[in-house]
Amino acid sequence: MPASSLLAAPPRVLNIGLEGFARELAARGVAVVQVDWRPPAGGRRELAALLAALGRHERRIARANAEALRRMFAAVPVLVDVVPAAQAIPALRRRVVLHAGPPIDWARMCGPLRGAIAGAIVFEGWAPDLRAAARLAASGAIEFQPNHRFAAVGPMTGVTTGSMPVLVVENRAKGARNRAYCTINEGLGKVLRFGANDASVLERLAWLRDEFGPALGAALRAGGGLELAPLVARGLAMGDEMHQRNVACSALFLRALAPRLASAARAPQAAARALAFIAGNEQFFLNVGMAMAKAIMDPVCGIEGCSLVTAMCRNGTEFAIRVSATGEAWFVAPAERPQGLYFAGYSEKDANPDMGDSAILETVGLGAFAMAASPAVAGFVGAGSAADATRYTRSMSEIAIGRNARWPIPALDMAGVPCGIDIRRVIETGIAPAINTGIAHREAGVGQVGAGIARAPLACFEKALVAFARSLGVRP
Amino acid sequence: MPASSLLAAPPRVLNIGLEGFARELAARGVAVVQVDWRPPAGGRRELAALLAALGRHERRIARANAEALRRMFAAVPVLVDVVPAAQAIPALRRRVVLHAGPPIDWARMCGPLRGAIAGAIVFEGWAPDLRAAARLAASGAIEFQPNHRFAAVGPMTGVTTGSMPVLVVENRAKGARNRAYCTINEGLGKVLRFGANDASVLERLAWLRDEFGPALGAALRAGGGLELAPLVARGLAMGDEMHQRNVACSALFLRALAPRLASAARAPQAAARALAFIAGNEQFFLNVGMAMAKAIMDPVCGIEGCSLVTAMCRNGTEFAIRVSATGEAWFVAPAERPQGLYFAGYSEKDANPDMGDSAILETVGLGAFAMAASPAVAGFVGAGSAADATRYTRSMSEIAIGRNARWPIPALDMAGVPCGIDIRRVIETGIAPAINTGIAHREAGVGQVGAGIARAPLACFEKALVAFARSLGVRP
Repeated sequence: MPASSLLAAPPRVLNIGLEGFARELAARGVAVVQVDWRPPAGGRRELAALLAALGRHERRIARANAEALRRMFAAVPVLVDVVPAAQAIPALRRRVVLHAGPPIDWARMCGPLRGAIAGAIVFEGWAPDLRAAARLAASGAIEFQPNHRFAAVGPMTGVTTGSMPVLVVENRAKGARNRAYCTINEGLGKVLRFGANDASVLERLAWLRDEFGPALGAALRAGGGLELAPLVARGLAMGDEMHQRNVACSALFLRALAPRLASAARAPQAAARALAFIAGNEQFFLNVGMAMAKAIMDPVCGIEGCSLVTAMCRNGTEFAIRVSATGEAWFVAPAERPQGLYFAGYSEKDANPDMGDSAILETVGLGAFAMAASPAVAGFVGAGSAADATRYTRSMSEIAIGRNARWPIPALDMAGVPCGIDIRRVIETGIAPAINTGIAHREAGVGQVGAGIARAPLACFEKALVAFARSLGVRP
Repeated sequence: MPASSLLAAPPRVLNIGLEGFARELAARGVAVVQVDWRPPAGGRRELAALLAALGRHERRIARANAEALRRMFAAVPVLVDVVPAAQAIPALRRRVVLHAGPPIDWARMCGPLRGAIAGAIVFEGWAPDLRAAARLAASGAIEFQPNHRFAAVGPMTGVTTGSMPVLVVENRAKGARNRAYCTINEGLGKVLRFGANDASVLERLAWLRDEFGPALGAALRAGGGLELAPLVARGLAMGDEMHQRNVACSALFLRALAPRLASAARAPQAAARALAFIAGNEQFFLNVGMAMAKAIMDPVCGIEGCSLVTAMCRNGTEFAIRVSATGEAWFVAPAERPQGLYFAGYSEKDANPDMGDSAILETVGLGAFAMAASPAVAGFVGAGSAADATRYTRSMSEIAIGRNARWPIPALDMAGVPCGIDIRRVIETGIAPAINTGIAHREAGVGQVGAGIARAPLACFEKALVAFARSLGVRP
């Protein structure tokens, strides 16, 4: 186009930052493109100064972060077994209850977490009924620990006790010392992970312990385990994001295990029950994916100078993150309520604050980070259309330093899922990691009331940045 | 924008028809939008005149076509059983071989069809070996009939004989008199449907007859059948187009049947073999989908004044279509070679012309018509990117009169697959139906050498239009 036509055409405006200018021009019929810009670190000077000071360590941090990505990409997560939790985690031979999120005591626990713990205590036979179980829990006679302390994760309440069967995912790149654990997904409706604890819940747990868990374990051992990263790649191409939608992965999981389950089962009816259980639960793969993500992230913990998030989790009261360089330290802030859609008869006032270890999926680039792969889930969690789903993934790529080429998204021309959340980018952009999540009723025993999108509180990242800077000798 | 700026800007050109003008302007830097326009009926006056003459019957044809769509949309196809073909089709108690496509005699059959027939004859015990089988086939002692004559369909060679088990799909909207049949998909590699016929092929057929077919039939009867339209809807949302990609539907099929297969099997190992067979074949659902499509289209046959295509099929030598108003008449033209991608070591010169009854899937709006749902298949058949896949579906919607809201495509904002191919629109636009297809080697015994896109020859539609017009008393 000749230069003269630049002058001939009407003015077009690019507006950066405050939207008011753009709105006024647009109202006068001027073509305006609005650029969504915010000052770094939300304009908070001390954080901006800290980011600037960290700039002196840029090469060191970049090297550490590249090493972290290398470890994530090198992981070969394989589902190898199902065993009683106490066999995988010896601490559970005692009266210990594991839960989702950072450490918390009974007094500060939310309703569903208390409900799940009471149910688990009855299930373990430590108390005769739920009331006695709650008394026992409140008495201090039961020890509470986060799953993450024992290479474990659990969705929603995440309650894990010794006799519950756990999925065992081994990172073959590292061997048996890099194993991660997660209980078996119970299905929808009344389930312990959402705080339900009646007889039907405990009966299902007993069946998982006595029949299903051992059968699945035998099937896995007979077949040499199931490699998970390729399964997840196929799931992404079939509309799953592995957090709130696991339809494809659960079906592909069943496909891979069905022949082994049928031949390893004690009786045809037991095989049929096991197959029907997996077939009837489109979120079955959720817990497998979580253990996979945990196995991928554990080798990333404790890398000096690494500013990447290694875990995000919530106990229903607080949200917490861990950062590679600062090892097992938790950076904690109050958990927020997810924004989402509610099942008929429920609303936001019924919602418990954000809950569960499942945000480990977003930590490896799945869930909300992979939303572009899953237009259906975007609708389910209230994120909008397919185009909105893509926007979520693009937005998350602004706070992630890498793309996992092993997990490409067809709708993004096969770009990999964004992964490696850098706390510096979160602070700089003010973009909090999004998390696709189920929403639990705030009272024990009710269960799931909706699904939506939670945001990791920025306060966690602010605290983490200070501690991370300190680990490099940089002080605010 | 004020009118003056229309004059201030450089000229922009919309070019309709011959591309030469557009190319020249574009070469001079002028902005040109090319509209792909062709004169109606490819400029052939007699066809254009026929279309014009049919205009007098527009209301009658529109009413008949609407009734056809109503029947298609009202169909409730359910996979109800697996039985020996001779039980479903009594003609097969004699020495009859069914094949894909329109009628053809031995002398004019292509290599793979002859190969498959020879294999089937040995399988049925009518001849001791392949050479004797070919002699017997050539002698006239075997009767050849199209699958379509017996409410059956078969992929590629489509060879069906009495002892082969067939899938039975019943259209519940019509009951047991509207049943359609298709053999069980044998998997990839050396298989009868591609003309392979060695001992491994016949052994697999024997296993399908003796163990797998009866087990699947028992599982289906025990569970009251499997409703197929919702399964296909889910498959479309998971990247299948049901012709060259059936990954999701095959996995969902397995998921639905696995518990019943496990409990109905004679022995755990038999159940494991059956499950492993389905799990190992991502095209397993192809044949189920074909029988479904046939069951949907059969009630559309023979509607007076209806200009919709009720079947498209190929015998490896000729392509043929049927049109509702003209009932069981075939409109035949030489089959073309598909355009596509070849497996390593093969090229277009190895390709047999287009083959199989599987184009019944395109007839109901799946396959190439649903390409937008399946970017992965677009790459596999050489159609290009996701955007190209969408273009195929949009192009097919120009020759289809309806959209099936039961089968929405997420990438098209949940618009239904285009269905109801109107021969008038095909002639008018010159757009031939596209068909996603496997490519067989032209010699017997080799098998599949690639996958691609075939086009229904326009000559079939030209002949059909003449016959259709005649059925309304309109003569060229």
